Amino acid sequence: MSRRTPKSAQLTIGIDVGGTKVYSILVDSQNRILARTKKKTKEGTPPIVLERIETCVQDLLKASGAAASDIAALGIGFPGPLDPRKGIVMEATNLPGWNHFPLTQEVTAHLGIPSYLDNDVNLGTLGEAKAGAGNGAENVFGVFLGTGTGGGLVLGGQLYHGKSGTAGEVGHMIIHHGGRMGPRGLRGSVEGLTSRTAIVQQIVERIENGEKSMLSDEVKAGRRVRSGTLKKAFAKKDKVVCDVLRDAAEHVGVLVGSILNLLAPDVVVLGGGVMEAVPDAILPRAKEVARHIAVPDAWKHSTIQAAALGDDAGAMGGAILARMKAASPGRG
Amino acid sequence: MSRRTPKSAQLTIGIDVGGTKVYSILVDSQNRILARTKKKTKEGTPPIVLERIETCVQDLLKASGAAASDIAALGIGFPGPLDPRKGIVMEATNLPGWNHFPLTQEVTAHLGIPSYLDNDVNLGTLGEAKAGAGNGAENVFGVFLGTGTGGGLVLGGQLYHGKSGTAGEVGHMIIHHGGRMGPRGLRGSVEGLTSRTAIVQQIVERIENGEKSMLSDEVKAGRRVRSGTLKKAFAKKDKVVCDVLRDAAEHVGVLVGSILNLLAPDVVVLGGGVMEAVPDAILPRAKEVARHIAVPDAWKHSTIQAAALGDDAGAMGGAILARMKAASPGRG
Repeated sequence: MSRRTPKSAQLTIGIDVGGTKVYSILVDSQNRILARTKKKTKEGTPPIVLERIETCVQDLLKASGAAASDIAALGIGFPGPLDPRKGIVMEATNLPGWNHFPLTQEVTAHLGIPSYLDNDVNLGTLGEAKAGAGNGAENVFGVFLGTGTGGGLVLGGQLYHGKSGTAGEVGHMIIHHGGRMGPRGLRGSVEGLTSRTAIVQQIVERIENGEKSMLSDEVKAGRRVRSGTLKKAFAKKDKVVCDVLRDAAEHVGVLVGSILNLLAPDVVVLGGGVMEAVPDAILPRAKEVARHIAVPDAWKHSTIQAAALGDDAGAMGGAILARMKAASPGRG
Repeated sequence: MSRRTPKSAQLTIGIDVGGTKVYSILVDSQNRILARTKKKTKEGTPPIVLERIETCVQDLLKASGAAASDIAALGIGFPGPLDPRKGIVMEATNLPGWNHFPLTQEVTAHLGIPSYLDNDVNLGTLGEAKAGAGNGAENVFGVFLGTGTGGGLVLGGQLYHGKSGTAGEVGHMIIHHGGRMGPRGLRGSVEGLTSRTAIVQQIVERIENGEKSMLSDEVKAGRRVRSGTLKKAFAKKDKVVCDVLRDAAEHVGVLVGSILNLLAPDVVVLGGGVMEAVPDAILPRAKEVARHIAVPDAWKHSTIQAAALGDDAGAMGGAILARMKAASPGRG
């Protein structure tokens, strides 16, 4: 937990609820982080998460010296299907007991602070768009390569949700029709070709097919391959790992080039655990491939950036959402 | 040319400039078409197109009995790279002599009517979104299968251009990385798999490889295969034509499913010459494939529709753009 003095009476709080931790920040109107705190998610049922959120808020106030009355609003990022307009969590990707739970209503009732909700990846994109790699650009496309591959869209300066509220499901776009089998029984989907899960699967397959790799022992022992392991193997130029990462980067480039053609965003932000671990394996090759695919004008006017906020992105997006909503509560 | 009495003092004109004809309509504030006229594009240089546009406007006024003062504004759809914000045509896809030509400035100066410009496919999407298959929906994705495959996006009720102004270049999205070679040296692009050009190429290849088809004679004689020919051969269940169309429809479905995941639009509109000629070859199969790919919520909230306005779509979009711009000239 860090401590600074608040610079403004209009502070907001962003809270990123994950499978293992609830991560919170307090920010001022310039998106400066005044305090951070994190708590274990523990069992992760609704009452426990509510209690964690309350504790986070109290800790942030204590650490910063701010009063509850200094907090204009609070924004929560949550994994899994939810209704951002109504603040209801339909279900949670890795947490039990969430079934159409009215999270913002409960948080607002308990804390007396207006609260808002969105998908964690959407808020990561919003955070990067406004206060990170997007640098405030109007149209930003975010892709996050982690356990899965998720995405978000900021269009016209606002999070874009589409009719169903599910927009940004970039992992289930098809870039190689008929290709490798991925999640949801889809062949050639972005997630099935670029997520850490897909990358690790391919490394394991190659090792099982007899290719030599630094990771052979741990793969054969059935240990989980983490981003940190990929990073070490890439740094040591392990051929299997380098080949698979190059292939994933190529597919990221295919996606990004296609998105440049469809949406011509100001900025494409690439983030997530894989990008943080091996940015040099992903970014240059993805750019090279995207450049080949993009129409020249779209390429010229857009930039492709590594995410800048790291673990803060989702919570920052929550704090920014809270400020935007508090300023004009009627907007999408 | 048809004739009706104007229902409102706030009329607008939409003009669709194509390679062979300049097609114009006069509409009232309810998007009712009061008069239509078309002229051959002829040589298609800037002075000739300007003269054609002027003649169209005069003919529309004469046919409807409206006065020039009844016309609030005029919207022009044009093929090829242009700057919609400045009203400048950078170049034209099939017309000579267009090099950064300030079309709207010239039209406004000659006719005394505020005029606006956009890409013909964008305006086709806008026309369908507001007055056709989109039925006024907020977020509409349009795909048009013709000589090439083009697209447009209406988001939040407005045409979306992106940073470069080129958004909607759906033909150059990649759906089968490493697949069949298409335009711009791109493998597995939407255009290379779904346009009439791609469809005809594949029919020709199959016939040249010895497969039997009703089209064998005209292909061997080197005659151009038109949409009408495809329609007849599809109606007679010609195997080569049916197979190739089924494959194109599948790829349309891959695109549409991916777009449902990314953008979750209210409506996807499928139009263009191929769709008009053989809707039953394209739409059912495309829907089936898209349904498999789309996340369930996006599928549930979106609809996939055949375009409803036919040849009027682009001009209708022009008339609607003109009304939107005249009402709030500052908007994107």
